[in-house]
Amino acid sequence: MSVNWRYRFAFRTDGMKSSIIRELLKLTQDPDLISFAGGLPAPELFPVKEFEEASQKVLKEHGSKALQYSPTEGYMPFRELIAERMNRDGIPVSADQILITSGSQQALDLTGEVFLDPGDTVLLERPSYLGAIQAWAAYQVRFKGAEIDHEGVRIEAVEDALMTGPKLMYILPNFQNPGGTTLTLERRERLVELSEQFGVPIIEDDPYGALRYEGESLPPIAAIDARSNGESLEHVIYLGTFSKILAPGLRLGWVAAKPEVLRYYIQAKQGQDLHTSILTQMVAYEVSRNGFLDRHIQRIREVYGERRNLMLDAMKRYFPEGVTWTAPQGGLFLWATLPDGMDTEPLFKQAIQEKVAFVPGYVFYAPEIGREPLRNSMRLNFSNARPEQIEEGIRRLGRAIEKMTR
Amino acid sequence: MSVNWRYRFAFRTDGMKSSIIRELLKLTQDPDLISFAGGLPAPELFPVKEFEEASQKVLKEHGSKALQYSPTEGYMPFRELIAERMNRDGIPVSADQILITSGSQQALDLTGEVFLDPGDTVLLERPSYLGAIQAWAAYQVRFKGAEIDHEGVRIEAVEDALMTGPKLMYILPNFQNPGGTTLTLERRERLVELSEQFGVPIIEDDPYGALRYEGESLPPIAAIDARSNGESLEHVIYLGTFSKILAPGLRLGWVAAKPEVLRYYIQAKQGQDLHTSILTQMVAYEVSRNGFLDRHIQRIREVYGERRNLMLDAMKRYFPEGVTWTAPQGGLFLWATLPDGMDTEPLFKQAIQEKVAFVPGYVFYAPEIGREPLRNSMRLNFSNARPEQIEEGIRRLGRAIEKMTR
Repeated sequence: MSVNWRYRFAFRTDGMKSSIIRELLKLTQDPDLISFAGGLPAPELFPVKEFEEASQKVLKEHGSKALQYSPTEGYMPFRELIAERMNRDGIPVSADQILITSGSQQALDLTGEVFLDPGDTVLLERPSYLGAIQAWAAYQVRFKGAEIDHEGVRIEAVEDALMTGPKLMYILPNFQNPGGTTLTLERRERLVELSEQFGVPIIEDDPYGALRYEGESLPPIAAIDARSNGESLEHVIYLGTFSKILAPGLRLGWVAAKPEVLRYYIQAKQGQDLHTSILTQMVAYEVSRNGFLDRHIQRIREVYGERRNLMLDAMKRYFPEGVTWTAPQGGLFLWATLPDGMDTEPLFKQAIQEKVAFVPGYVFYAPEIGREPLRNSMRLNFSNARPEQIEEGIRRLGRAIEKMTR
Repeated sequence: MSVNWRYRFAFRTDGMKSSIIRELLKLTQDPDLISFAGGLPAPELFPVKEFEEASQKVLKEHGSKALQYSPTEGYMPFRELIAERMNRDGIPVSADQILITSGSQQALDLTGEVFLDPGDTVLLERPSYLGAIQAWAAYQVRFKGAEIDHEGVRIEAVEDALMTGPKLMYILPNFQNPGGTTLTLERRERLVELSEQFGVPIIEDDPYGALRYEGESLPPIAAIDARSNGESLEHVIYLGTFSKILAPGLRLGWVAAKPEVLRYYIQAKQGQDLHTSILTQMVAYEVSRNGFLDRHIQRIREVYGERRNLMLDAMKRYFPEGVTWTAPQGGLFLWATLPDGMDTEPLFKQAIQEKVAFVPGYVFYAPEIGREPLRNSMRLNFSNARPEQIEEGIRRLGRAIEKMTR
């Protein structure tokens, strides 16, 4: 006899499957393939030199501290730097309202651990971020989607979805993943009102907010909440990350919440991994301080803005008539939609033959009772590929679409 | 109206409370306090210079890779190094059976996510590691303890506990935390037999195995399993960590399991934090390779072995009659027991007044139906305090015990 492992696994493993993006990322090992699939930053922009200097400095000056156990909440100067940046964005928080997490993926998972019981409903945008869907599916919840249009999530759809009694609302206000849309100021204000009216908190996930290439910055939902309620983070939990503005390999993100809420995040994180690597936190702090992070973000914005323009331009030239797409004001992604009745899943296979990759849109639709994902969309990333690859990749993708249309 | 946060939290937060150790660690900010409370390595042994060189090398040679997203499974050369070390210990595994985790705390939490449904029972040693109890309590499980004696967990107690139908058995075979005991070879063999007989897998947690100061190394339970079953990891999931042999601040641990099991760990980790910091993994690999880790472990063993002896010697001199303790062959902790009827919780307050800290033993007892924790024991760490502090700290603690006895 032996262990019958299948009967040992928890129920929640039934729904666990490897992300299609993850499988796709494996495909991108082929050096000839041009990938618009992942959400990877441009590696040539990583401030490697600065990391070298910072890691030397941290280890020379605080070696023992950087290698020892440290508090779950995170490295205090790093939390202060984040609080300062949030204050600048109109969210009045102090450093002790911030918990450092292992990327914002952990912040999403902790959100599940703190809030979600099996059978709870999560209100989220339709489509929404795959990592959040994956993290919360493990908590055995239901999802209720509210459609997005070119101004972000539709308020009528949110009002409708609130009638299902969701535990929380998950919103990506800026350059949404995957839709690329930005929520208007008016809708942000309405969401705060709805949160107040229904008592349903907003999880504001803002990984791309700093990466705007055109138009005026809009205040985060948490800033509007603070303005209209006097007190900060009354209805909102704010998630941020260094993955897109510094380096994702570090796995550094954060949660900002009211102390009575953050307390549970801290305890949940303590059970999950005690704390995030203190060496990494100290080095990231050392790199970011003295205005470097702002200068670096400026550089990223220039490069990504250019790549976005290149991609939009190439799509005009190479995509057949009937294909439409969003022109995001920032972020990493745009969302293209093929004519009704087409399916980007077989297109994906065709595209791989042409040596170009994207993510079929259907994967970004959370499972919902009685609703099927739209199948004629796709997400395209424009931050990772080099300019000449963008041109060539879109040309290949246009060819693949044409082959499918015939 | 506003968000009523209390009614938003998940049921599992009811049981969440901050670890007493964590609160204690906050106390240890007082520079005059001598702490035997935490499980901290000696910071003066951290190979800071080697980390400086390694981080330079990694960033210079592979900067882009070290800062970019990377596979959930971990950095392949690092996994290979771990597999090689496990093979040396008699556990035949390949690198693809190893998942890098953010400390072994994450491996414990992932074990909960993969295996534990609410209401499941976990068989564990009594007392056992607090971090495991904390991580699994969040999965809303029951605990069934099997007492340890000076030879490790009692087999009769395990047999008895197996009758409760536990989902898994959690065993710390070497220099157990908190008991300091080492499981005999015969009992290890019996555990494998019992796992086979009852179909209940063993989670073997081995953070201290390499830190032996006297006696002969015993094969890991996973090695015995491999030997007796032909195939590796048939009944055992093995957890390891770099926290005690290199540096805990890095948060680097691992899980080794059969591919069909590891698959779920990988998917669960993907939802939790995508991957562990790749920079940290690459630097730790660079530091560890070419035999450095073995030489470094040798150095740790010398220093900690000496501190253990110092502490044992001081206890003989300063502890009043009637106090007994374990003389662990390795690891970081010893376990002292006061006469029946005494309580180490009020003693703790007395000790703080004398400016010495320990962890009261009752915190290491998982909540169990109809059973109360023993209250007359305490855990003492001997790795972190310097030799002169050990002498002075035990003197203070002896005084505190005497005051309580009167």
